[in-house]
Amino acid sequence: MNRHRIADVRITPIAFRDPPLLNVAGVHQPWALRSIIELETDSGLVGLGESYGEADTLADLQRIAPDLIGLDPFALNELTHRVYARTSGDGDPAVGAPYPPRGDKARASALGAFEVACWDLQGQITGLPLHQLLGGPVRPDVSYSAYLFYKYARHHADPGYPTDTWGEALDPQQLVEQARRMVGQYGFGSIKLKAGVFEPELEVEGLQALRAAFPHHPLRIDPNGGWSVATTRRMMPALARDGLLEYLEDPVGTLEEMAEVATFAPMPLATNMVTIAFGHLPRSVQLNAVQVVLSDHHYWGGLRATQQLAAIGRVFGLGISMHSNSHLGISLAAMTHVGVTLPNLAYACDTHYPWQEDEVIEGGKLPLRDGRLAPPPGPGLGVRLDRQALARLHRHYLDCGIRRRDDASEMRKHQPDFDPTRPRF
Amino acid sequence: MNRHRIADVRITPIAFRDPPLLNVAGVHQPWALRSIIELETDSGLVGLGESYGEADTLADLQRIAPDLIGLDPFALNELTHRVYARTSGDGDPAVGAPYPPRGDKARASALGAFEVACWDLQGQITGLPLHQLLGGPVRPDVSYSAYLFYKYARHHADPGYPTDTWGEALDPQQLVEQARRMVGQYGFGSIKLKAGVFEPELEVEGLQALRAAFPHHPLRIDPNGGWSVATTRRMMPALARDGLLEYLEDPVGTLEEMAEVATFAPMPLATNMVTIAFGHLPRSVQLNAVQVVLSDHHYWGGLRATQQLAAIGRVFGLGISMHSNSHLGISLAAMTHVGVTLPNLAYACDTHYPWQEDEVIEGGKLPLRDGRLAPPPGPGLGVRLDRQALARLHRHYLDCGIRRRDDASEMRKHQPDFDPTRPRF
Repeated sequence: MNRHRIADVRITPIAFRDPPLLNVAGVHQPWALRSIIELETDSGLVGLGESYGEADTLADLQRIAPDLIGLDPFALNELTHRVYARTSGDGDPAVGAPYPPRGDKARASALGAFEVACWDLQGQITGLPLHQLLGGPVRPDVSYSAYLFYKYARHHADPGYPTDTWGEALDPQQLVEQARRMVGQYGFGSIKLKAGVFEPELEVEGLQALRAAFPHHPLRIDPNGGWSVATTRRMMPALARDGLLEYLEDPVGTLEEMAEVATFAPMPLATNMVTIAFGHLPRSVQLNAVQVVLSDHHYWGGLRATQQLAAIGRVFGLGISMHSNSHLGISLAAMTHVGVTLPNLAYACDTHYPWQEDEVIEGGKLPLRDGRLAPPPGPGLGVRLDRQALARLHRHYLDCGIRRRDDASEMRKHQPDFDPTRPRF
Repeated sequence: MNRHRIADVRITPIAFRDPPLLNVAGVHQPWALRSIIELETDSGLVGLGESYGEADTLADLQRIAPDLIGLDPFALNELTHRVYARTSGDGDPAVGAPYPPRGDKARASALGAFEVACWDLQGQITGLPLHQLLGGPVRPDVSYSAYLFYKYARHHADPGYPTDTWGEALDPQQLVEQARRMVGQYGFGSIKLKAGVFEPELEVEGLQALRAAFPHHPLRIDPNGGWSVATTRRMMPALARDGLLEYLEDPVGTLEEMAEVATFAPMPLATNMVTIAFGHLPRSVQLNAVQVVLSDHHYWGGLRATQQLAAIGRVFGLGISMHSNSHLGISLAAMTHVGVTLPNLAYACDTHYPWQEDEVIEGGKLPLRDGRLAPPPGPGLGVRLDRQALARLHRHYLDCGIRRRDDASEMRKHQPDFDPTRPRF
């Protein structure tokens, strides 16, 4: 087989419409940012990646890009070395320093963005679906959960911005309606409620309404660290009653607080906020602060890192699932390829995908059925870039003016005195 | 790319000459056993593996073999599932149970034997050297250490068995002579002494003689759990003086004892005896019982498992090196391919390779220079089976009559009252 080398690196910032979804930090802006990564080889193959579109991430990716010219897409250790040489952090895993940099999400994110594109190239070069290169499937598909949000009916201001079809969801009844539509449309078998928005008692009422409407769906709630330990303790009897929750995600904001909650929480605690890098794991394990790590290849450092995290989870008794930000099909394909290879992926994964109407891949949205998705067939990720869509979404990026996600400022358009300081409750 | 499927599985037991090397359990028998694994695809490719040749291992491999027919060599998770379905243990990693079975070295060994052969096939199918499929090199070669043994000049009895050229090594002076020859011939940059044979004071004298003869070579001693905690405490001042040791390997025989030794040992403790499976790691970390894990793809479950172990080592602050039994070139090639991909392989690896004159691969012994070996070039492992050699070594197996390693019985031919009960000292 001829060696293939990376000859061009393209990073295209895009923006796509995002509904006014509420969370602890405020409300989603009308446009969500993302970056599309293309690694083109001297042989003309194009490997795809998708990552954050914030200015900081784009600057990291652009700074690294020239160093990737000439790289063999199989040389993932060399990729790591080059990415880490251009990003700050506490150590370089390629030379055996303590790894990874403690909490340095930025450099692991840059690595993850390029690493997925390299895997896509490896798949195209070998003719193999990406999951085959990752050890092959242990299941045919990945289960995702319905990801419910409290939401406004429409974004503030801009009269030209189209209103989404999901409507308002500010009370238990509207939440159940949202769930009925989302479960009906996609077949999800479990439900997650993004919380930390209203008084915890109201949010638990929402959960109870969901339980009544969906007696057999595992339920989760994610206050995003918006509660104090005392508030979490106050809510615990209601959260624990009749096994209401499959797990409780990030009720509080620090590892130490999570460890305290773990002493009185009968259900597993999950996180994508306090254990978000390999360097956090020893103390996390020592404190038994969390029982489920919501992995995310975007900031853990890619698909190899996701597999390593899952392996650590098996050895140290941590459950594994997946976290999601607003994303499109390249990310969903990558999550699904790695997800089918993880023996201990014991929970349905989170995805914002139903909230996004735009897509950047050929053929439009990937089809979630029964809440599940199989890896797209074909070599590598199995998805191809729709260049017209890419140009359109890039145009949105240029026009929307947003360069950094700021849910708090957006929220202040609705509530001028909004204060996102946590714990909010 | 066409799919390749495993169409034939061949497991050939072999025996090769082994010198009368002394250790805590007795003395090496005249013949060392090994198994050579061949996975042949429907397309005529042959992937190679090498593992233990004891009767138990052979029975495991033979029982699993029929289940591998039809397997895609890339489907390593499915391989794991099939191997674990045919071997006993506490859990099946393919379905997320606690992993791996606590201390079940046998099933991980069976997995490792076949897994390497699958990787070899993957390399041949893709045309890539195995280390490229493992993420690519972080260094050009792997450093190995000189592995010194106390030894007799010749095996007991059998007048037809040829005498090796290494001679006797029963005192410090003879040990230094052995080291001079081995370092001179192979260029090793560090030295390990297999101990647990004589009174610890005599063995430390041996170390001190080595230190005088090789002032700059890192030194290690491995009593194979042959000492008590009290003995280890007694020897510690001499072992610690002037930084004599790079690390102290398995002075005592249990995890708890190692943890106790760690409280008074100033040098790192290494092991291939008390932390030998993933299930041992949590307690090992919790007790800080060992600081260096001597990995071994043969019993940790293969090359992926070795990479996972190394990743865990990086996260939890464990050093990583490699353990070795008597082995030939297929094993050495596999160790070297995975070794160049491990960022935190911070110590020279152990190998018995210089003690073996026989070889089963084309071209004879792999060339260790300056104590180092680069991965053999070419697709996969980069080594091919010498079928005449295989037939010859299989004939030795049939003729030698040994079916299970038994160093103690062999030792009793020299010392009828030999008692291998540990701690011996």
